[in-house]
Amino acid sequence: MDPDVLASISHDDAEWAPVGKALAALRATSTQEVSAAVRVAAELGIPVVARGAGTGLSGGANAVDGCLVIDLSPMNQILEIDVENMICVVQPGVVNDDLKAAVARHGLWYPPDPASAPWSTIGGNVSTNAGGLCCLKYGVTRDYVLGLEVVVGGPAGEYGTVTHIGHRTTKGVAGYDLTGLFVGSEGTLGIVTEITLRLRPARREAPRTVVGAFPSLVKAGDAVAAVTRDGLLPTALELLDRACLQAVEDWKHLGLEADAEALLLAQIDTPGESGQAEATATAEAFEGAGALWAAVSTDEQEAEALFAARRLAYPALERLSPVLTEDVCVPRSQVPAMLAAVVEIAERHGVSIATIAHAGDGNLHPLILTPPNDDAARVAAQAAFEEILARAIAVGGTVSGEHGIGLLKREGLHRELPPPVLAMQVALKQTLDPLGLFNPGKAI
Amino acid sequence: MDPDVLASISHDDAEWAPVGKALAALRATSTQEVSAAVRVAAELGIPVVARGAGTGLSGGANAVDGCLVIDLSPMNQILEIDVENMICVVQPGVVNDDLKAAVARHGLWYPPDPASAPWSTIGGNVSTNAGGLCCLKYGVTRDYVLGLEVVVGGPAGEYGTVTHIGHRTTKGVAGYDLTGLFVGSEGTLGIVTEITLRLRPARREAPRTVVGAFPSLVKAGDAVAAVTRDGLLPTALELLDRACLQAVEDWKHLGLEADAEALLLAQIDTPGESGQAEATATAEAFEGAGALWAAVSTDEQEAEALFAARRLAYPALERLSPVLTEDVCVPRSQVPAMLAAVVEIAERHGVSIATIAHAGDGNLHPLILTPPNDDAARVAAQAAFEEILARAIAVGGTVSGEHGIGLLKREGLHRELPPPVLAMQVALKQTLDPLGLFNPGKAI
Repeated sequence: MDPDVLASISHDDAEWAPVGKALAALRATSTQEVSAAVRVAAELGIPVVARGAGTGLSGGANAVDGCLVIDLSPMNQILEIDVENMICVVQPGVVNDDLKAAVARHGLWYPPDPASAPWSTIGGNVSTNAGGLCCLKYGVTRDYVLGLEVVVGGPAGEYGTVTHIGHRTTKGVAGYDLTGLFVGSEGTLGIVTEITLRLRPARREAPRTVVGAFPSLVKAGDAVAAVTRDGLLPTALELLDRACLQAVEDWKHLGLEADAEALLLAQIDTPGESGQAEATATAEAFEGAGALWAAVSTDEQEAEALFAARRLAYPALERLSPVLTEDVCVPRSQVPAMLAAVVEIAERHGVSIATIAHAGDGNLHPLILTPPNDDAARVAAQAAFEEILARAIAVGGTVSGEHGIGLLKREGLHRELPPPVLAMQVALKQTLDPLGLFNPGKAI
Repeated sequence: MDPDVLASISHDDAEWAPVGKALAALRATSTQEVSAAVRVAAELGIPVVARGAGTGLSGGANAVDGCLVIDLSPMNQILEIDVENMICVVQPGVVNDDLKAAVARHGLWYPPDPASAPWSTIGGNVSTNAGGLCCLKYGVTRDYVLGLEVVVGGPAGEYGTVTHIGHRTTKGVAGYDLTGLFVGSEGTLGIVTEITLRLRPARREAPRTVVGAFPSLVKAGDAVAAVTRDGLLPTALELLDRACLQAVEDWKHLGLEADAEALLLAQIDTPGESGQAEATATAEAFEGAGALWAAVSTDEQEAEALFAARRLAYPALERLSPVLTEDVCVPRSQVPAMLAAVVEIAERHGVSIATIAHAGDGNLHPLILTPPNDDAARVAAQAAFEEILARAIAVGGTVSGEHGIGLLKREGLHRELPPPVLAMQVALKQTLDPLGLFNPGKAI
């Protein structure tokens, strides 16, 4: 393989995560090829790093020195859509939005929607247990994975063994939940070559959007807490700060006004009059928490533009400078305090931080922006990054809500987990991958 | 401890599952006591069997010879209800219905509702990943467990080590999903001493009930498939056959008419007019599939009586004779075929089978009724039991939807899981419990 091509598929989208020098790459087109490659790699003692579209933000798909990269993106077939049972079976390289579109044609819905959905693959989503915008009401990737075909080694048999974990039924407790264990394991326990997903009926009405503009990040955080306190459960409750709105507007000219310090976007899919009542109550909660203004959007195009802005915030900022992406998750009640901490940490380290957040989940993505080729700025950014992790842990949160540990969060993980839990994690890895062949040095 | 008392807490509610002779029992009142007991048991090489209310139906809580039984039911405190974050922290001995009532006072809802909810404990629910009536829309116990305090050994340190797995946030991917692994593991990986649960806002309106009476089990099964095909998602879709209805009526005199071969009960909680429309559509789906009659219940008392009958079916039958309880789960589209198979198997083996089912989940509970002290009948019942398991596997189902493997389903489990998966299961057990101390011989 051309060295430039090999280099280009040797990393994901994480800024400053170390990238090793891969020995070779396989663009896999079948489970049999993956199985054969893993068997050979085991014989030669070569580590194996699986990847999809490479949109990861923690370095989980970065090559390690001397590894074989297995690119699963050519395995992009939807193998089955079973309408009667509301499930589908897909290869790992299927792009999230392509799956959504395909099942929608059968009146079905696949809810998990990371902002990367137009590019990221279901295999990658499974490897990080990706979340997205509608987790608040509809959960994360793990909640939709019923079963997996996996290429494994160790206790399962020779490396390269293909087997099926989980089930096709909606419930099942036959044995330990291996499926849940593999979801979010970042390719460190084996390689996922097929995924059986639970689907839901498509929604019968377009959801309602409520927008609120706030004079400060912290007031927007107060509104998030107020919505929960009022017993409201939007499908999404997203936050964008002024820097994010401005960057998207400068790039895409969607006609957004960046006149507030922060916007909150709520989406409500309860149908009919009840949905209208919930939307009104959400707008009132925004106002009660100090919004400059809040309104139920009656313009579908405007609502779409706002959610598009949310999804485009990360690439819009990435156009401008290297972005170090945070992914802390804190208890919802701690969102205002955590947002205040981010502002304070940015000021103290002299770094620029733009914030987007799945605020209703307590999942914040402070984006640390750094001028290119500025070593001092990079050091400051990395110090701010670690400090945000520490603060999230201190308020009862976690270092990763949905991006995974990869390479960037390994220190944070060690700070977060008690030593007995870390020891259990390491023991599981050693048990299921005794040769340490699958994506070594990642996730734990 | 009095030998009669010891014997009485040495088994759960599974018929004909072997019960060993326990050496002693501890009625635990704190995590510290559990930890100390596990430490001592490890030093003496004594196996430890944890239990709650003993409502299990697979023998998972049955004593093994020479074991220490640890009864967690005295640990029945709700430690925290965090309204802002919609979570609670409870001890394992809290009864499911008591928790529901306590959080309801704060406008919150804990959805998982096994039919045993008036008696079974959250710890027991966690150990089997209990389901219940509203799984169809709201999932099972695992979907609500965010974190656990566990008493463990092996890689975590000395047996008796207390640690915390999981998180308090709504999302989190820091390390492998140990929490999901412990849920449903039937006490074979450690002992759960504290549980952090996700809650939902209480529903704002009483749900609607749709009732349909069918001339045969299979036609009721057809109606289940029709409901799914029409994109309807009731919170519950329950089936009772005539034998169940009759047994409940004879016992409780609720005024039920057992004039049909099977009843379907659907519960719909979509609010407002949309809910009414879904209820009407559900009744139409019942009629289209061949119901004798179908109606949206306008009488809340009648609806409650019907769901009460569903919950009481198992104890009502248990009053009459020993009951061997099935718990197979099949793809929804296979429900009619599976119901037909149950009828055929019952006839061929000359056994009496009453059927209740979480039909919308494909989770069937054929209840095999046997005259007491009739060895030939018992042999026939057990043959029918194994044949139902085999048929469920053959149509793509699983041997246990929500009761767990315990002792009764071990053969079925070995038929269901591919050898590599079984080997991975065994390896996980050996890794996390190298002394084989926690509930040996169960679950896998």
